[in-house]
Amino acid sequence: MSLKGKHMLCTQDWSREELEEILVLAEDMQRERYTDKYARVLDRRTFFMFFYNPSVRTRQSFECAATELGGHAQFLEPKSMRLKTKNTAGETIEDAAKVMSRYACGIGIRILEDKIGSYGEGHALCQEYAQHSEVPIVSMAHDKFHPCQGLADMQGLRQHWGREQVKGKKLLQVWGHGALARSWCSVQESILISSRFGMDVTLAYPEGYDLDPRVIEQTRENCRENGASFAIENDPVECYQGADVVYSRNWMHPDTYRDGELRKSEEIERALGYPQWICDEEKMQKTNDALFTHPMPIDRGHEVSDPVADGPRSIIYDVAENRLHVQKALMALTMSDLK
Amino acid sequence: MSLKGKHMLCTQDWSREELEEILVLAEDMQRERYTDKYARVLDRRTFFMFFYNPSVRTRQSFECAATELGGHAQFLEPKSMRLKTKNTAGETIEDAAKVMSRYACGIGIRILEDKIGSYGEGHALCQEYAQHSEVPIVSMAHDKFHPCQGLADMQGLRQHWGREQVKGKKLLQVWGHGALARSWCSVQESILISSRFGMDVTLAYPEGYDLDPRVIEQTRENCRENGASFAIENDPVECYQGADVVYSRNWMHPDTYRDGELRKSEEIERALGYPQWICDEEKMQKTNDALFTHPMPIDRGHEVSDPVADGPRSIIYDVAENRLHVQKALMALTMSDLK
Amino acid sequence: MSLKGKHMLCTQDWSREELEEILVLAEDMQRERYTDKYARVLDRRTFFMFFYNPSVRTRQSFECAATELGGHAQFLEPKSMRLKTKNTAGETIEDAAKVMSRYACGIGIRILEDKIGSYGEGHALCQEYAQHSEVPIVSMAHDKFHPCQGLADMQGLRQHWGREQVKGKKLLQVWGHGALARSWCSVQESILISSRFGMDVTLAYPEGYDLDPRVIEQTRENCRENGASFAIENDPVECYQGADVVYSRNWMHPDTYRDGELRKSEEIERALGYPQWICDEEKMQKTNDALFTHPMPIDRGHEVSDPVADGPRSIIYDVAENRLHVQKALMALTMSDLK
Repeated sequence: MSLKGKHMLCTQDWSREELEEILVLAEDMQRERYTDKYARVLDRRTFFMFFYNPSVRTRQSFECAATELGGHAQFLEPKSMRLKTKNTAGETIEDAAKVMSRYACGIGIRILEDKIGSYGEGHALCQEYAQHSEVPIVSMAHDKFHPCQGLADMQGLRQHWGREQVKGKKLLQVWGHGALARSWCSVQESILISSRFGMDVTLAYPEGYDLDPRVIEQTRENCRENGASFAIENDPVECYQGADVVYSRNWMHPDTYRDGELRKSEEIERALGYPQWICDEEKMQKTNDALFTHPMPIDRGHEVSDPVADGPRSIIYDVAENRLHVQKALMALTMSDLK
Repeated sequence: MSLKGKHMLCTQDWSREELEEILVLAEDMQRERYTDKYARVLDRRTFFMFFYNPSVRTRQSFECAATELGGHAQFLEPKSMRLKTKNTAGETIEDAAKVMSRYACGIGIRILEDKIGSYGEGHALCQEYAQHSEVPIVSMAHDKFHPCQGLADMQGLRQHWGREQVKGKKLLQVWGHGALARSWCSVQESILISSRFGMDVTLAYPEGYDLDPRVIEQTRENCRENGASFAIENDPVECYQGADVVYSRNWMHPDTYRDGELRKSEEIERALGYPQWICDEEKMQKTNDALFTHPMPIDRGHEVSDPVADGPRSIIYDVAENRLHVQKALMALTMSDLK
Repeated sequence: MSLKGKHMLCTQDWSREELEEILVLAEDMQRERYTDKYARVLDRRTFFMFFYNPSVRTRQSFECAATELGGHAQFLEPKSMRLKTKNTAGETIEDAAKVMSRYACGIGIRILEDKIGSYGEGHALCQEYAQHSEVPIVSMAHDKFHPCQGLADMQGLRQHWGREQVKGKKLLQVWGHGALARSWCSVQESILISSRFGMDVTLAYPEGYDLDPRVIEQTRENCRENGASFAIENDPVECYQGADVVYSRNWMHPDTYRDGELRKSEEIERALGYPQWICDEEKMQKTNDALFTHPMPIDRGHEVSDPVADGPRSIIYDVAENRLHVQKALMALTMSDLK
């Protein structure tokens, strides 16, 4: 099975077997990190990182990934490109993608809420790049999905439970209050990939904080196909019952976008009105000795209390490290001839 | 013939034989791109890229070039240097150049119209760096010239016609209307290098859009020396007659600079008043089945129509790729011991 | 003696033997710069450079150092990190440091006066990173110290006098007037390391321009321990008497910070009122044929006259180059298994 040339905008676009291949390779890359086994996989190749939105963590892990494979990741900010928009002269995405394909082995794109006018535009932009690029496009987080985060989450669970023990476990994906008005991308990716791997999924949030209905529908279908359960709850305490892993994370209300504008300060004010939505030790006692995870950076004291984030069941740093391993594996499989 | 240590501010400063050496090596580097033949040419060496003006394409191709030769290009923005100017305390060019020579194998500089007070100041700055630097200075586009673009253009023509078939062919270098108020650098480099390689050159533009008279005089002399013809035309249609390659590109009116200021919006308004100056299929039919070229990014719908830019005679993506090959060859010949 | 894992915030935190080890390795790295001897010391490893304050020179030399050791330095600006502050939600230093430790072999931090509210806050931030990081933290200049500059200075003196000839020589560390309101870091590091290596130190400045009293006390103690002398003078001419090396550099008045604000323009006006505080040829004639040094960039005409900076006794470019060698040595000893 060759995955060379394949784009990665969402794990849902990949088969279960293909995802397995990434995760197995990521595990081996972790073991062999300081040996020469994968030292020349991207030897002197260039990977472009396109940051419509800045991000230190994502940049660190992608640039590190390219370096460890013998290549180099270029940090690019499209604001210094003269790209055509509705109102300005400039280069088309088609031209940009075709030229970049001549230089690079792959292109990463990050585009979040504040750089677009409405939900879905970031995904559409990634798709337009994918349509014209002759090299793989990788989402480094966009408004809808964050596939590398989803893969890192899954590797974290397999590390702690064993590869075969994920199926049948229960994920509590719970909203956290806070002051950051966060994207839906990590959370939507999480429920999609967890349900693909056979986990029971409980999604819990205050009334009104609904996610993309098509993603919910897809998650429900994933659960059905894998004999797993899916539930939505609106009680910030009861939802913890029986969870094997708790993933607490803030996300924005669906009407944060209105009339083509992102009303972040309004949303932050609203979100801070739900202080009971924090993952703390008391709530964790209702779980099945659950692991705690989060894609970081954490907004401590809002999304989760310090004792939980720093506690013995927290796997946050391991999951953050996994970003490196899954991204190396993804790049190796889609951008090199590694078999 | 050793080219080590030679600066590259304009192809006109190099002999025809020296340019030939770059182009021949660039061809081989294209063939051997994914082999180890040139893998250690700049092994662990540093190339500094100094972007007074940002540029994604130029940065991509130079950084990629250094990576493919085993080295590393640093992306630097002089705005974060405390350089001495007329009005502020800071470091002299001499000190900056001498220290950088201790770290790097070469230094690229990009400085365009909006960072200077009048035409020629960018060139003077590059010359000042060259005077004090102990390592080669390469123009990555400045107000007067863009040597790497000229080399990439020439490699494109040789790829499509054959090395020996360039002499005697006719270049139409034609102004395109548009909203970008572009630099003269690519266009001036193009007519200089084309005339060096024995091409007939027709320069066509609306009355008033004259280029640097010294460059025109030099082009005329190059043509004379090579038994080629040089003509200036002001008719946007007739100029296409008999062309073997059409290079359509906007450039700014000479009075865009006035009183030390760059009046870009005024120039854009003026340039948009010439909609007949677009390269389209109808005009291309007057040519000798001409190739179409452009240094990109293209302002489609202004400089050229989509059917021409995307047509079978368009070599725009190949020329863009050539930037990589000629820059690798230039770096190898001037910054390493490669024979 | 293994130095692996050791932080470097100030040379004073390291023993004299440990500093000697860096300097001896730096000399060998200079000799072997273009051989393969140290080519794989940081093979495919990532070093993070955290620039709270931008700097071209420091960035050039650190990024070049990582490249020459086979690794890669990432240029990061914390302004694009959502770090927690007193008033905003965001990530804690602890979380940031722990995650970065999973990706990188070391972390450099640069934070100067205009990014903090009072003297010492930059040093405290570096210490907080060091407390939580599992990989070495290196100061790339902070408000109190600049250890790599101090090491480069010392290597410069040893190059020109011989390793064993530094002890007993006299350093004149003299204030220069100027328009840059400079940090205390290079100067404080210089008097600390010079006194560690047995030099007599004379610190000369206009009344009021006192440095950190704890650094002065430490310098005095270093001198005492090494049988050397320490003096403070306020005469801009007499202080040159008998100096073996003159290090002229502007620094800001201690009351430049007031009420949590950095009053730079006020300080610049004050500093320009002392034009007699310039290192010139006439003053240099009072010395013992002294070397001239400066950490660059130089504010010529204020801190030093051109004839001195460019004269035969000036070692400024050698010292600038040494930044590369000492940083390579420091990285090798603290971040790799090199013995």
